Order: sequence, then C-alpha cells, then structure tokens
Amino acid sequence: MSHLDAVLSHLDADRDAAQARLFEFLRMESISTDSAYKDECRKAAEWLCADLNSIGFDASVRDTPGHPMVVAHHDGDGPHMLFYGHYDVQPVDPLDLWNASPFDPHIAEGSQGPEIRARGAADDKGQLMTFVEAFRAYKEVTGTLPGKLTLFFEGEEESGSASLIPFLNEHKDELKADFACVCDTGMFNAETPSISTMLRGMMQEEVVIKAADRDLHSGMYGGPAQNPIRVLSKILASLHDETGTVTLPGFYDGVAPISNELKAQWENLGFDAKGFLGEVNLSVPAGEQGFSALEQIWARPTLEFNGIDGGYTGEGFKTVLPAQASTKISARLVGDQDPAKINQALRDRVLEMLPADCEAEFLMGRHGSGGIVLPVDDPIFQKARKALSDEWPREAAFVGCGGSIPVVGHFQEILDMDSLMIGFGLDDDRIHSPNEKYSLTSFQKGARSWARVIDALTS
Amino acid sequence: MSHLDAVLSHLDADRDAAQARLFEFLRMESISTDSAYKDECRKAAEWLCADLNSIGFDASVRDTPGHPMVVAHHDGDGPHMLFYGHYDVQPVDPLDLWNASPFDPHIAEGSQGPEIRARGAADDKGQLMTFVEAFRAYKEVTGTLPGKLTLFFEGEEESGSASLIPFLNEHKDELKADFACVCDTGMFNAETPSISTMLRGMMQEEVVIKAADRDLHSGMYGGPAQNPIRVLSKILASLHDETGTVTLPGFYDGVAPISNELKAQWENLGFDAKGFLGEVNLSVPAGEQGFSALEQIWARPTLEFNGIDGGYTGEGFKTVLPAQASTKISARLVGDQDPAKINQALRDRVLEMLPADCEAEFLMGRHGSGGIVLPVDDPIFQKARKALSDEWPREAAFVGCGGSIPVVGHFQEILDMDSLMIGFGLDDDRIHSPNEKYSLTSFQKGARSWARVIDALTS
Repeated sequence: MSHLDAVLSHLDADRDAAQARLFEFLRMESISTDSAYKDECRKAAEWLCADLNSIGFDASVRDTPGHPMVVAHHDGDGPHMLFYGHYDVQPVDPLDLWNASPFDPHIAEGSQGPEIRARGAADDKGQLMTFVEAFRAYKEVTGTLPGKLTLFFEGEEESGSASLIPFLNEHKDELKADFACVCDTGMFNAETPSISTMLRGMMQEEVVIKAADRDLHSGMYGGPAQNPIRVLSKILASLHDETGTVTLPGFYDGVAPISNELKAQWENLGFDAKGFLGEVNLSVPAGEQGFSALEQIWARPTLEFNGIDGGYTGEGFKTVLPAQASTKISARLVGDQDPAKINQALRDRVLEMLPADCEAEFLMGRHGSGGIVLPVDDPIFQKARKALSDEWPREAAFVGCGGSIPVVGHFQEILDMDSLMIGFGLDDDRIHSPNEKYSLTSFQKGARSWARVIDALTS
Repeated sequence: MSHLDAVLSHLDADRDAAQARLFEFLRMESISTDSAYKDECRKAAEWLCADLNSIGFDASVRDTPGHPMVVAHHDGDGPHMLFYGHYDVQPVDPLDLWNASPFDPHIAEGSQGPEIRARGAADDKGQLMTFVEAFRAYKEVTGTLPGKLTLFFEGEEESGSASLIPFLNEHKDELKADFACVCDTGMFNAETPSISTMLRGMMQEEVVIKAADRDLHSGMYGGPAQNPIRVLSKILASLHDETGTVTLPGFYDGVAPISNELKAQWENLGFDAKGFLGEVNLSVPAGEQGFSALEQIWARPTLEFNGIDGGYTGEGFKTVLPAQASTKISARLVGDQDPAKINQALRDRVLEMLPADCEAEFLMGRHGSGGIVLPVDDPIFQKARKALSDEWPREAAFVGCGGSIPVVGHFQEILDMDSLMIGFGLDDDRIHSPNEKYSLTSFQKGARSWARVIDALTS
C-alpha cells in the first residue's frame, strides 16, 4: 500500500471524528464584522492554532489591529507551499429565515445527499478543514507532515481584510513560499472538480454630473437649463455599441483571445446557460455578441452601471430639474487590461461629452486591480489537475471566475507567489445567506482530494 | 373729474388704511397644509367674507370637505367678471431663516424700495387685496360696485386644491361668468406690468425597467445579464437629438410658431437671459437650438427627466447588477399638443427599445393637461393691456408662463371661461420661502391698476 492509499484509507476511517472536529469549530460564532463577536473570533483562532500544534505544526496566534491571524509552519523537503483559509464567517441576519440555529451544526438531508448545515460550513471553515484533515491523516499515517509547509489563516475576510496587506508586508520573508494553495472556491458542479485559473479584476468609478447650483423648477427653467440626468444618460448610452462592445478607446488592450484548448475544455463542461440565467428569470446572454455566457463571465471584460441617482426619486412626482446626477460604474477586467488606463479613458469620455455649464466630479479615484491569469501550463497545475481527476467522477476543469479573490492578487503582488485555487463549494451552498450548507461529500472527498494533490506536488 | 380719476385719488388717500387692512389679514396664520391651522384658515375666510359684505357684496363662507371657499356676488350691468384669489398661505419652515416673525407683517426697506414682509404678502393675500381695495374705492366714490361681479376665493391653493374641482362642478351656474380675472401672477419686471397669455401644460410618466428578478453580483453575472440602468440610459439618450429637439414622433404636433408680433414684443422686453441663468450658475441656454431662452420657457415644449434611480446609491460601492431602474419623465406642453398622444409615443419608444428579458412598467398613467393659449386679440385683453400701460412706466406685455396655473385650466374646462391673468408679484418676492415680501409699490399701484382695468372693461 502506497503512502497515499494509506492516507486515503485513514481519512475514510476517521470521517466521524473529522466531522466532530468541524462541528466544534462551527459552533464558534466568529462573525468578524460585528465587534460583539470579537472574543468568539479569537476563540476560533486559538482553537485552530491548538489543533495545528496537535498535529505537528509550529502554530501561533498573531495579533493585528483587527482579528488575529493564525500562522503555522512545518519544515521539510520539497516545494514550499502556503495554504490559505479564513476562520471568520458572515453575519447571520435575517435569523428568522434559518431553519435551525446558525451555530448549531448538524447534518440534514439535501436534494443531493447529506449536508452540513451551519454558518461558515462552506465559507470557509468546512473548506479549510479539508486540507487540515489531509495533513492530520498524513501525520497519523507517516509520523510526519509532507514537505515544507506554511498555513496561513485570517479572521477578517468577510469584513474587508483590513489587516491583510500590512501583515503580508510585515511578514514577507516568513510567508513567501513557492506557491499558495487557496481553498475558498467551488467546483464546476457536484461531479467536476475545478481549479480556478482566471480571475477578473476591477476598476471602479463614481461620476457626478453637476449643472445649476440648485434643483430648479421645470416650469420656470425647463428649456434653457441643462439637465444632468439627460447629460449622464447620453454619456452612459455611449459606452456600449449595439453589439455590447465597450466603446472606450483601448478598453480591450491586453485582453487575450481564449485558446482553442481552453475553449474546447469549457465546451465539454456542458454549461447550461439557459438554466443559469433562468434561475434569475433571464433567458438570453446579453453580453458581447459572439461569446458564450461562460466566456462572457470567465474570460471577457465588462463595463457595468451599478447604481444611478438624480433628482426626485420619492413617491409621486416633483417637476424638478436636478442640480446633479450620479452613477457608480465598474469594469470587470481580464488578462492584462490596465485599470488605471481604463479609468482614464472613462474620465476622458465623460469630459469630452460634457456640455457647457456642466461639471463632472470623479469620486472614487480607485483604480482597482487587474485580472489574474494563472500559468496553467506549469507542472503544478497539471499535477493538481490529474490528482483531482483521480478522486472525482469527471475530469477536473480549469475554470474562470467572474469575480475577484483579493487574497490571490495580494499574494501575487506582495509575495510574488501564484495561487492554486482549489475548493469544493457548490453553487447552491447559500454562502452569505440563511441555511448555509456544505455538502458532506465536499467535506469528505475534499480532504481526500487534498491528500492526492499534496502527494502529487511533493513526490 | 372722471369716475376713474376719483377712484384713483381715493385709493391714494386711503393707502394707510388699506395697508392696515392687509396687515390684519396677514396676521392670520392660514397655512392650509397643516391641520393645526384649520381654525386660522376659517378665520381668514370669515374676515374676507365680512370685509366683502362691508363694501356691498353679498358674500358667504362655503364649507367644503377641506378649508372653506368664500363666494361674493354683486349684480349689475356689463360683462360678468369673476375675480379669483386664495387666502391660504405656504408653511413657514425653516423658521430660523426669517428675519422677523412670518405673521407679524411690517414694512422693511428693500433694495428697490419699501416692502411688506410677511408670509402670504405676495402669495396671495397682498395680491387679492389689490382688487378688493379697487372695489372698495369704487364703492366709496360712486356709491355702488362696478358691473356684474363674482369674487371667488379658495383656501387650499397651497395644498393641492382638493375641493376646487368638485366645488366648480357643483356651482357651475353660480360661478360661470364671461371671463375670469386671476390675480396670482407677476410682472415682467418692476416697471413692466404683464398679462400672462400662454401657460405650459404637462404630461407625466414614471418608467420602470426590470430585468432579473433580483439584484445580481456583477462578478457572477456581469456579462450575460441585462443591466436595466444601461437599457434605461439608451432609451433616455434617444429622446433628444443633438440640437435639443425631442425625437418622439408627433411630439411637436400642435405647437404653433411664435407670431412675429409676439416675437417683436418679447424682444423689446430686453430679457436678460445671461442674468436669469447666471442666478443659478448657468450661462448658455441649453434647450432647442434656434430659440431664445424666453421662447424656450414661454412658447416651446420640453421633455425633462425629473428623477432617476437604480441599483446601489449609498456610500461606497456595491458591484450589483440592479434588478431594475426607474425614471420620472415630464413634458411641459404648449399650444395644442395632446398629452395623451405624447404619453403614448413615449411608451411606444420605451417598448420599441426594450431588449429581450426586460420588462417596462408605466406607473403614472396620468396624461396631465394641455397648454393654454389665451385669445390676446380679444378686446378684453387689448383693453386690459392699455389700462395697465397707463399706470406703469413701461407698456404692458403679453407674456408666457413656463409653468401651469391649474385654476385657469379648471375655469376653462369646467366653466368654459378664459382668464385674464394680471398680478404684481416680482421675481424676488421669495414666495414659498423665508422672508416673503410684496413690494409696497406692487400693492398700491396694483390696486390702482385694477381700478383702471375694471374701468376699461366695464365702460
């Protein structure tokens, strides 16, 4: 019996104990946004630290101005891998929509099998315990931990990660590894494990158009006075052409075409665009013409209007000509698109279209971050993909992620370290919502998956 | 000495007493929007009724579901004229911006001479007392009132005139006259008396564009999901071309060109467009190209966006794709433009431009009312204009009014009666605002003006 087979067998034999450990962890009310739960956050950090020390790590709780970090090390041979997770959880309101207490973890029968129900089950306590359980099994079976390891957990992921960047900067030498393993993403579906290899970045801007120095009566001024809502509408309407293409000069600079191989892989996934859109009562992909819904989400940039406001918006009617109108605009970026250049192109467009007597203010000045494309041809990615494929019914997929995972960007920028994003969440896990769950299969096969991935990366 | 000269002399001699009567009236706190002032409203109505009875009218206070009306009659020869005013006033908040108590009328020196300062001084107690004082002088000098008269005062003009339409319908026979004299408007400037002969009408609509059945995360759905703000912006941007012309088919049907005579009259007024716009920090007339600011306000229709709302509009940023976006749209209408047809053209445009998966809701369904153009060639208008010109330094002007004066529309629709709109308010009277005032000259020469107009219309 190979080491790996023994580790997998041990994981199977130890399932009930692993579940009991996770339940203990889930009972801690580590809501990071609410200072009333400060002690609970620390309790979760200390519990994690003690657990890691008990399986051979050199772990400690590190204070920050916010909630503490947990850092654990094990020295060994092979590549230096940093594993990331977060022990804090989202708030639980509205509490009356939960079928059971959010911090009373239990198994419930779901539509696709047994589920672990609790706040944090999927995001991220259940996920991070998959690799902790894998390490525990290695330790039990082999008497030591596999390779050179750093484990790094934060307690502010759900509240803006205020301490993360300063902590990474202060502990560069300690935390820098060959690559990171981030367990905070999902599977393509319940049968198809996934490695997220493309993350979209973000540019954000808030634009205010101002005209008269007060709201005007449309009877008195309607005609000669500028109307900022009209000016803003003309500007926004200019930003996409009739094919859904963004018209800002240079917007698509740095957007690489999707490789034929990736395209073929994605087509094979059998993504159900109709079902995906149908869930929110839509039916037709409305983005750029010539791209599938999956391509639009994973590999194409967007320019979106997230909010608009101006004039009288209460009940009934007021015939004002508003003094100003404003909008929040964001772009999801891919590949090498430059957020600063795109922000400038947007500002230029606004100023170009501004008529006499109008002013524009730009409130964000936040250029955000570019997209991330990870090196899927690197042996790490290929080995991890094979290891995952060995565990699950379907071959593992390299997938995109329409949103951003900030920590991955910080690892890249501050520690010059790529991330292997592997997670076992499912689309219906209700993270951030009442009745959050984590499939029991995700938890059990997740631990087995990490055992396989760690074995592949260290042998 | 003619009757008229004697009446004018009497008005001059009786100035102090007239001012004392107005002050007594102004002390009544007849705020119609606030039920706490119900008794004060009735007191003002009863005071007015008693004053009219004292000068020979047959006056009575008439109950309504809201504040009472005051109706007074005098039978005589000549055309039957109905005089309209309102005895209610606006609320006084913010009270701390008043330099003196709003209901403690007094004379203060203003930039252009003495001013009567009090809530209601200009809107509308001071104005309505100009014709009451003219009638009083006629009675004192000639022993009788001039002609066949109906005086009609409401107490809900500042709170929506809820009782007005039912009252007019119930008392059609009693109130129907040959024409109405409405004293609730202003002069073109302090030297130029005015008769308002064009009022703009109104079409109102509220449009909601809906896409997904909930707000979506732009990371997850950005690309394939419809964005209602984008859809709405495209629709709004389509409604005006680059010359400021409204693009709805048939929008300008019924808009008559401005006659050369009126154009010349308006050019003679020497309207200071720069000053008018400069007061609100604008400089360039932004309406339809080829029309002066005055023409844009008085004689041209508009289509304006009064409010817009959608997505996240709070502090900071939320990268949502909103489920809906909405806007309030109104059109100021002139001449024979049909509000119902224009509303339909607007709805048609919205539906034409609606992409797949979007729905539009139209919330107002209120077609509003058309513009009003009064028959300036009628001898009544010509005589009144001459009479006003005799009193003031400059010739009286036929002017437009960018807004609407609802009672004039009701008189036309319900009583089939045109209105002669003559008033002596000035642009800086601060009606509806703290420190409302009425020029003492407006009050004194206003009464003399009515004496002249009444003389001209009854002889």
